[in-house]
Parts: sequence; structure tokens; C-alpha cells
Amino acid sequence: MNPINASIITIGDELLIGQTIDTNSAFIAQELNKIGVWIKRRVAVGDVWNDIGQALDEESKHSQIILITGGLGPTADDITKPLLCEYFGGKLIVNEEVLAHVKYLFEKVYRRPAPMLERNLKQAEVPDVCTVLPNTIGTAPGMWFEKEGKIFVSMPGVPIEMKGLLINEVIPLLKTRFQLPLIIHKTAFTFGMGESMIAERIKDFESALPPHIKLAYLPGFGLVKLRLTMVADNKETGEKEIEPLFSKLKQLVNDVLVSDEDEGLEVAIGKLLLKQNKSMATAESCTGGNIAHLITTIPGSSQYFKGTVVSYANEAKENVLHVNHDTLTSAGAVSEETVREMVKGVLKTMNTDYALATSGIMGPDGGSEEKPVGTVWIAAGNNQKTETLKLNLRFDRLRNIEQTSLTALNFLRKFIINNG
Amino acid sequence: MNPINASIITIGDELLIGQTIDTNSAFIAQELNKIGVWIKRRVAVGDVWNDIGQALDEESKHSQIILITGGLGPTADDITKPLLCEYFGGKLIVNEEVLAHVKYLFEKVYRRPAPMLERNLKQAEVPDVCTVLPNTIGTAPGMWFEKEGKIFVSMPGVPIEMKGLLINEVIPLLKTRFQLPLIIHKTAFTFGMGESMIAERIKDFESALPPHIKLAYLPGFGLVKLRLTMVADNKETGEKEIEPLFSKLKQLVNDVLVSDEDEGLEVAIGKLLLKQNKSMATAESCTGGNIAHLITTIPGSSQYFKGTVVSYANEAKENVLHVNHDTLTSAGAVSEETVREMVKGVLKTMNTDYALATSGIMGPDGGSEEKPVGTVWIAAGNNQKTETLKLNLRFDRLRNIEQTSLTALNFLRKFIINNG
Repeated sequence: MNPINASIITIGDELLIGQTIDTNSAFIAQELNKIGVWIKRRVAVGDVWNDIGQALDEESKHSQIILITGGLGPTADDITKPLLCEYFGGKLIVNEEVLAHVKYLFEKVYRRPAPMLERNLKQAEVPDVCTVLPNTIGTAPGMWFEKEGKIFVSMPGVPIEMKGLLINEVIPLLKTRFQLPLIIHKTAFTFGMGESMIAERIKDFESALPPHIKLAYLPGFGLVKLRLTMVADNKETGEKEIEPLFSKLKQLVNDVLVSDEDEGLEVAIGKLLLKQNKSMATAESCTGGNIAHLITTIPGSSQYFKGTVVSYANEAKENVLHVNHDTLTSAGAVSEETVREMVKGVLKTMNTDYALATSGIMGPDGGSEEKPVGTVWIAAGNNQKTETLKLNLRFDRLRNIEQTSLTALNFLRKFIINNG
Repeated sequence: MNPINASIITIGDELLIGQTIDTNSAFIAQELNKIGVWIKRRVAVGDVWNDIGQALDEESKHSQIILITGGLGPTADDITKPLLCEYFGGKLIVNEEVLAHVKYLFEKVYRRPAPMLERNLKQAEVPDVCTVLPNTIGTAPGMWFEKEGKIFVSMPGVPIEMKGLLINEVIPLLKTRFQLPLIIHKTAFTFGMGESMIAERIKDFESALPPHIKLAYLPGFGLVKLRLTMVADNKETGEKEIEPLFSKLKQLVNDVLVSDEDEGLEVAIGKLLLKQNKSMATAESCTGGNIAHLITTIPGSSQYFKGTVVSYANEAKENVLHVNHDTLTSAGAVSEETVREMVKGVLKTMNTDYALATSGIMGPDGGSEEKPVGTVWIAAGNNQKTETLKLNLRFDRLRNIEQTSLTALNFLRKFIINNG
């Protein structure tokens, strides 16, 4: 059975001038994949009547399902609703449920002094040829249209509103309308080996894969995700076929394997610490709090993460982390000696089992001949020992911060495994 | 003069299963807009021969310039190069300059033990019908094709490689090939007022705009960017026409205006502190270092940012920030009293002029009837006074963190302006 195809159309000039990065499409794709709908194409067009109409025409040739986001706001540049109304040959009428909901939101939920305006009430007007899908969080409802056997669903572009509509309304309805196949993904998360090296190592495995199972390489900052994808008729036989192949793949990259789920280093570290019932802290100079931020995005991280000292100024390294003044003047802030003392200092200050420290020059300024931009020292340790790592990065500031953060997390992860 | 249209085609299954968020398109759009090229459409397709070919056919009907990223890696799932070779009727030949560059990269730049593989050498093969654009950072070169008056440029999907190629090669070449108009954008960055309220306030201004000047609302986490866009024949007359309109717009939203450039709160705060020659620090509980991270993404932030204490554990609040034990037991960690003491503590610990503190419950767990998930206290202060703000958020963990961080930054920004 072939998967059902869908297209995503995102509407908004902000996507075409690069002012907004489209995160909605990734979320929609993930959720639709889970129910066996394959995203064939994603298209972004501006708030332009003809361009939107043309995109609807074209995508309905490519796919059975067309999901549309954006252009439903209360302001004049948002033209999606009148356009859809004309495209599907309807007229705008007030929907009483939506009207009541808009009034409820303004009176009970938006607690700040936000008077309800004529333009907000207009949000309750919908084409009479669509099925209205309730948006519990915002004022613009979802709209479900059908034409010549194709399904078109319009959702707001505000991510949290789109997510609620997709999960609570659109996906359950799609499940009742299609007999859906199953797409099984298995992802191995590796860190520290390049894409070509991995490809070389697993080339025999790759060429022996059956044609209905695909292997993809998804490289990131120092990481490569290896993903097996199959279209299966049912979960049991599919899992039975893919599981031994996935085990083989994991074995082949065992030395650089972080996780056999599609999850980040911060999740893997959290699981290790919970298992060991241990705690951690970070002392960050060049990463400026980004490692702490990554760790604390995980729900429940307060069970093992106690805190961080971001010591951007040398003063903070001395006063809060008790790095020796002599170390800072002789070896310098970016040195093996300093990151070692930062680990010791933060272990004591935060009273944890493990600690991670970073110090480096992220650029664009601050480099010297001896220590060019991209020079980074990392240390991970516990009360018995501390290990260090030096990096020579060659990216821009943001990527240097990101790459240092992830490399440091992986360094700590290995330290925890070897010293737990 | 009408602007030249371009389409962006991004290639890769990872974009269609939602494993990767496309940041390249936003960068390309920004840079092309600057030279007066309007992105008409963005399309993402998978690593599928027919789908890529179809996208090339379709986009060349919409646009004069077709920019393609992705699918140029050394692994088997990357099929863009052979496809382009066939599509434009060429054959693959070894390019000696690219071969020398690939060897140079492996021998001199990639310092880790990464042996050069047959598949890496294949990167030096290019279609004989294209102009090769050198990629100084990576192994896959850019490729420039022309067919029936349309220009097609293929670039790698790795962001840093794509950026280098676009800036150094593609844009200079496009400038020589087209007589380009000028697109002028003016963006006012507001924070703290909803889209509808702003729209209501500026509706007369909006309806009086001439037809060749467009106003767009770009809402984010608590912020709304208002962008005026015009297509001008030359810079001087264009600026002369748009400037008074932009001044009028800024005046209308003056009370919520953060900046009249398209720049974040962290940039605005940096400018204020540099002007006052003052320093700052943060004490973060619920934001977990994200505010420090935002501030330190700005080059030169070490001139005014001294450091942060992320006090996730109460222990850290007491030991490092000297919050009273009694305050924590009586009022609780998430309370006005605690954030006030956190500000005082970090001002002293980091020895700065200003400080910002956050404490809250980000969810999904940890809420109570009295303090539900989304309860947040923020404090900003100097050695003379401290001001506080309470939030009641209703989002998911990540958005609660992001919204708190931005609201806190804006709260500090206003404090600095009023007390500088």
C-alpha cells in the first residue's frame, strides 16, 4: 500500500523576506508521518491573492491532502479567509460558536486590558462551505474544505494554535477519512564522526538494504542521525523486519552512538543521571549559559541539575568559582588550567556530583596569534578527577557557541558513563 | 520596474519528515531582498528523482532565478548532482580545481584523523554544462546552470557552506546579470501590545498608505514587528518617500517601541549599556540560563555582561545568591520576595550596575493550586531600587521559557531607560 501524500502550504510575506523561520512545517510533518501520511511537498507563498490560488491548484495535483497555515490574522494583510471562501465558492457567514468563543477569550482569558474590537469579531465569520474546527487557544478557527476528492485544511500560523488544531481536530478527522499505512522510523543518534566516515563504514549494510527500507544521513553540529524508514502494512510485521536491521546498524556505529532514539544529548545525560541518582552543574564562560539552557529545556531536569555560574568576566571566575588569580594571569582565561579550576569551583559552589566547564574565544573579535578565534577548552569532572578537551573551531559566533555546547555535553556524557 | 522573482527549492527527506527546520531559506531570502530580488515561492521536496525534476520545471515557470540547496553530500541518498547533470543534458567530469581543494581540505584543514575516501574525491566531479562556484569551506562546490533564459544555482545544504557561496559567489554574479530594483524595508520592533490592538491604533495610517508601500504585521512571543516595504527605483527618492511614513508609524506606537531596526531586545539592551558605560548580570531560575545565552550571542557582549547565576536548586539560591532561608520557606522560591533577593544577591556577587532575576514554574509538572504552571516572578534592579513583575503564562515549557526570557529582557530594558 502506498502512503497518502500531503502538501503543506505556508502563507505569509514574512516567510519570503526571511524575517520568520518556518517551524510549523516540521511539526506538521512529524505528526503526519506518525499516522502514515507522507509530506510530498512544502510550499511557501506570500500574502498575494493569485500566488495563493495557484499554489492551491498545483498542490491539489500533487497530493490528496493540502494543509494550509497562516494568513488568518485580524489585520488587513491577512487574505487567506476571503480567498478560500471565493476559491471554494462560498460566502462568509457568522458562526455563532466561534463568536461566543472569541467573546469568551477576550472577557475571561486575555486578562490584560484588551478591549474586543470589530476586527476581532470578524474572526467569527467563516465560509459557509467549510467545516469549522474549533481553536481553543486563539480566535481564528480551523477550516476544512473538500473539492474533487481532495481535502484542504486551513489553520492559523501561530504555532501553539496550529498545534492544538492539528492534534485535536485535523489528525483524528484524517484518520476517519483514509485507510492509512504505517511509516516506521528508527533513528540512531551519533556524535563525533563525520558523515563520510560513517557512510564508508556502513556501506555494505546500506547496499544490502531491501528496496522498501531507506537509509538517510541527517548531519548537524558534529552529530549525524542515521534514520531507517520503511512503509509497513502493519506494525508487528514491520517492526519484526526492521528491528534486526536497526540492531545491526547500531552495532556498526557503537563507538559513536549516543542514543537509539531521536533525542538530544541533554536527554541522554538526564537519563544517565537519574539512573545513577547523581547531580550536575555547569561553569560556563564562552557558552554563556547555553548548556544550562539546553539542559533545562527538559521537563524534570530540576531533579539532577542544580545550577550554573556563567563567569563571563574574570572577576566572576575568581570571586564565584575561586579560580586562582595567578592562573588567570599566567595561563589565561582560555586555558586548560582555568577550566580545571572552574570544574573544581562549581562542584563546590553548587555541591554536585559532576560538573562541566567551558572557556573559549567565540569571535568575531578577541582572538590572538597564540589563541585564535575558535580556541576552546572544555573540562568535565567529579570530586575524584577532571578530564579536559581542546577544540579549534572555525565557524561564526553562533555556531561556535552551539558546537562547543554540544561537544561539551557529549564529553560530560562519556565522563559520566566511564566514572559513574 | 517590477522586481526580479526567485524561487528557492530545498531538497532533502529530512525536511519532509520534520527532522530538520529549514533555516537556509530565511537567510537566502534576506540576502536576495537586499539586492532587490523578490522570493516568490519556496518549495521543499524529498530526495526523489521525479519530485526534484518536477519542482525544477514548475519553479522555472514562476521565477527567473531558481536557487537550490541540499542533496549534494557524499552519501547515497544525495542525488541532486546526477539529477542536475541529466536535467541540463551534461555529463560528469572531474574538475581539477575542486579536486585540489578537496585534497587540501582533508590534508590541511580537517585536522582530526579523517582519511580521504573515494566518495570524497567524487565531490570533485561536476556536470560539464555548469559554471563551478568555489566552496571555500566544504567539499561540494556550487553549480550555476542556464536554460531558456532562466538561471539555476545549486548550493550545499550545510548552512555555513551555503552562506559563503551565496555571499561570495552567487550574489555578485546575479548583480552582473540583472538590472535590479531596490526593495526598501523599514521595521519597527514593538513589545507588549497585541497585533489587533496595534492594528486598531494605526488603521487610519494603514489605509492611507500609497499602493506601492505595504505594511505587514509579524507577531512573535509578545512582540510585533511592523514592517513597511516598498519597491523603489532608486535609494534616494525611495528613502525620501518612505522615511516620513516610517516616522509617523513609530510615533503611533511610541509607547511600545523597542527599536526602529529589525533587532532583538538583547541588542537594544547592549546599546543602552554601552551608552551608559554600565554593566549587568542575571540570576536565573526558571529561564535556566536562556537570558544569559541570548545576551551572549551578541558580539562584544563581554563589554557589559559580567555573568549569571543559574540557581535551579534552592541550595544555590541560598549559597551563591544569599537569598534568606526564611524567605524560601515562607514565601517560596517562586515569589516576589525571592526574586528581589536574587537581584540583590547577584548585583553583589557579580559586582554589576544592573541585575535581572527570574523564578517561575515552567511545567509540565511542579504547579499547585496557589501557584499553577506558568506563574512567574521577574525582578530588575540596581543598587538603589528593584522593580518586580508577575506573569501568568499558559503555554508549553519551551514557550514559557522563551516568553519569560523576552518579557524579562524588556522589563530590564525599561528599567535601564528609567533609571540610567
